[in-house]
Amino acid sequence: MSAKIRLYVEHPLGAGQSVPLTRDQAHYLFAVMRLGQGDKVALFNGADGEWLAEVAQAGKRAGVLDLIRQSAAQGTPPDLWLCFAPIKKARTDFIVEKAAELGAARILPVQTDFTNSERIRQDRLQAHAVEAAEQCGGTYVPPVDDLQKLGRLLDGWPEERQLMFCDEGLAGPATVLAEATPGPWAILIGPEGGFSEAERKRLTELPFAHRVSLGPRILRADTAAVAAITLWQQALGDWR
Amino acid sequence: MSAKIRLYVEHPLGAGQSVPLTRDQAHYLFAVMRLGQGDKVALFNGADGEWLAEVAQAGKRAGVLDLIRQSAAQGTPPDLWLCFAPIKKARTDFIVEKAAELGAARILPVQTDFTNSERIRQDRLQAHAVEAAEQCGGTYVPPVDDLQKLGRLLDGWPEERQLMFCDEGLAGPATVLAEATPGPWAILIGPEGGFSEAERKRLTELPFAHRVSLGPRILRADTAAVAAITLWQQALGDWR
Repeated sequence: MSAKIRLYVEHPLGAGQSVPLTRDQAHYLFAVMRLGQGDKVALFNGADGEWLAEVAQAGKRAGVLDLIRQSAAQGTPPDLWLCFAPIKKARTDFIVEKAAELGAARILPVQTDFTNSERIRQDRLQAHAVEAAEQCGGTYVPPVDDLQKLGRLLDGWPEERQLMFCDEGLAGPATVLAEATPGPWAILIGPEGGFSEAERKRLTELPFAHRVSLGPRILRADTAAVAAITLWQQALGDWR
Repeated sequence: MSAKIRLYVEHPLGAGQSVPLTRDQAHYLFAVMRLGQGDKVALFNGADGEWLAEVAQAGKRAGVLDLIRQSAAQGTPPDLWLCFAPIKKARTDFIVEKAAELGAARILPVQTDFTNSERIRQDRLQAHAVEAAEQCGGTYVPPVDDLQKLGRLLDGWPEERQLMFCDEGLAGPATVLAEATPGPWAILIGPEGGFSEAERKRLTELPFAHRVSLGPRILRADTAAVAAITLWQQALGDWR
């Protein structure tokens, strides 16, 4: 009774409902994956859990799925934001995919003094987050924000949200999290080349910021993002 | 006095020595990076630390670097092996790169019951480990073994080496490492589709194996590798 294919839909999911497919979804299910009437699919929309559905109508450009029953409750990750400076395309895609897999609640690309990117393709990054959730059995898709300047993000920072600031200039153990308190948190990963002196000064003086070291080696930004989320989940998140 | 370009060489490094370049290295330094006589490069060979060197002769197909002084002592990572089942090419490359960055001492691709790959390009994977060390300021390059069957690896397992076996069938906290003892360790990451029942049974019964959960979500193999090395380094390695 379980379904191999998981599909994210933008449609309410509930008992007795039918879900119309978009053209792309119909193409994927019926042309690429060769499903037909009566075949099973798992659906989720980020809010109503996972539902087992059955193909009721299958066409080349459209289709309808009938919901059978809820197969998993809605899972919500801990309240962790990942703020990161976009880098090369493949590594930026990778960061978004991994953040969704590891259970970040929101993904915020930020422009720092040493960030090369002037813009991002928010829609493409959001699609990566959706795909990661589809692949990994998640029911939650973290929203990906548009690119914003780090300074502006910090200007409007909610004071109750603590910030784990991964500083490659800091040697020493990553033990600060062991003494930290749970609650709303964010991780900030700098670009290659690190933070500017002005940024580091501002970040260090923020009352809600915690400087954390990620070991004695210099990590690429994508590695640092995965390592930081792992450490946070282990110390303060839902891996405890 | 510091050098931006780091180059791995297979040549002893010591005071007063000169290092001849291979054709590829000469092409990279002089044609791609446009270095010339007198320019500085950092060299390491995985054994003698990092050395500051100066271009003494620059040609199209050859060149010589003169060593000036040692700029960093040889760093040796903790005695951690990463054993993993190769997956798709890009993700396998990624695992090797990240293992080198995060400080694994040896990388062992293993063939499991559900591994698709029959072979790997050991030389290509080793080159990825070298490149990761060059990029990330490391002086150590983990050797990448040839592909071997998991069963055979376990037959000859050194009993004093503990094994962190990442079991996606296991729910619950990843706290087992907090009570574990340091020393020689290995991490084992299964393929997509996980371990077979026979493998899981054998692994569970090994006296040196510790089953560890990587959180409530199902992680891709490459994500699991990075998360597992991070947790190990934090609990038992050199991030403490």
